[in-house]
Amino acid sequence: MDLKKYIMDVKDFPVQGVMFKDITPLLNNFEAFKYAVDQMVEYVKQKGATVVVAPEARGFLFASAIAYAAQIRFVLVRKPGKLPRAVHDREYSLEYGTGHLQIHKDDLSPEDKVVIVDDVLATGGTMKAIVDLVQADKAQVGGIVFLADLSFLHEPDLFKEFDTKSLVTY
Amino acid sequence: MDLKKYIMDVKDFPVQGVMFKDITPLLNNFEAFKYAVDQMVEYVKQKGATVVVAPEARGFLFASAIAYAAQIRFVLVRKPGKLPRAVHDREYSLEYGTGHLQIHKDDLSPEDKVVIVDDVLATGGTMKAIVDLVQADKAQVGGIVFLADLSFLHEPDLFKEFDTKSLVTY
Repeated sequence: MDLKKYIMDVKDFPVQGVMFKDITPLLNNFEAFKYAVDQMVEYVKQKGATVVVAPEARGFLFASAIAYAAQIRFVLVRKPGKLPRAVHDREYSLEYGTGHLQIHKDDLSPEDKVVIVDDVLATGGTMKAIVDLVQADKAQVGGIVFLADLSFLHEPDLFKEFDTKSLVTY
Repeated sequence: MDLKKYIMDVKDFPVQGVMFKDITPLLNNFEAFKYAVDQMVEYVKQKGATVVVAPEARGFLFASAIAYAAQIRFVLVRKPGKLPRAVHDREYSLEYGTGHLQIHKDDLSPEDKVVIVDDVLATGGTMKAIVDLVQADKAQVGGIVFLADLSFLHEPDLFKEFDTKSLVTY
């Protein structure tokens, strides 16, 4: 199945000059969605992952189904003010300024092998912060999986110390 | 399985005097998560739903697994500035002021039977807006399912014109 058929280019979103990758048509087609999730599940199993970690909000769109299908735990990375207990916090770069991401302390442990999932790899700034958060409690990053890699937006060796997979590449 | 064991009370979050229901322990236990999702899938099948609709971000935590397991479509309700194509928009009440939620136009049609899913029913303000958004393209609301109903925060007949289900009630 060619998943790119279900990822729509939207011109000038969110700002002039940006070609946005809209993944909602993929979610709105259950065969395409199942096909994408099944490939991610296969990757998670190959890596022997015990946990899937995903950032809000679009990482959740895949991680929930992966956790369900692979029968592994699901740990959230969220923006500040969302996780109610003690957290690790990491700053990441945005086009203008910085943002923060958080994970609950002690949701992960050194025994955990984690696959991180997100929808799109763009500059990689948020994923670097997520890797840091996973490693804060010494969990092992077993791999990183994206639906789509916008490879023209980052260096090819951005996450070279980790195993990574993207279902489609632009 | 008593799902309440996996929903943790966190005092004074997000503000003093509020007892927050933290559902992350449920996600972090795959047996509890699977048990919750399977009950939601059973509900979706009973209702003959063709689509699951869920609001960001916590609705996505369940809707993705439901869509995958029930093999139905997944349509997103998001905050403004997130959905890139033409949208329907509805205002809803917050404790102070108002917020907006959006759905892509034409993702739903009158032929669709929708089950809406969210994690927690509190005052019901966001769910009323979501129902409105689903009905904007004349789709049928086949049912509404929550992980947890905070029944002390709303009138008992809040959604009496719809079939609703909550896996746990406080």
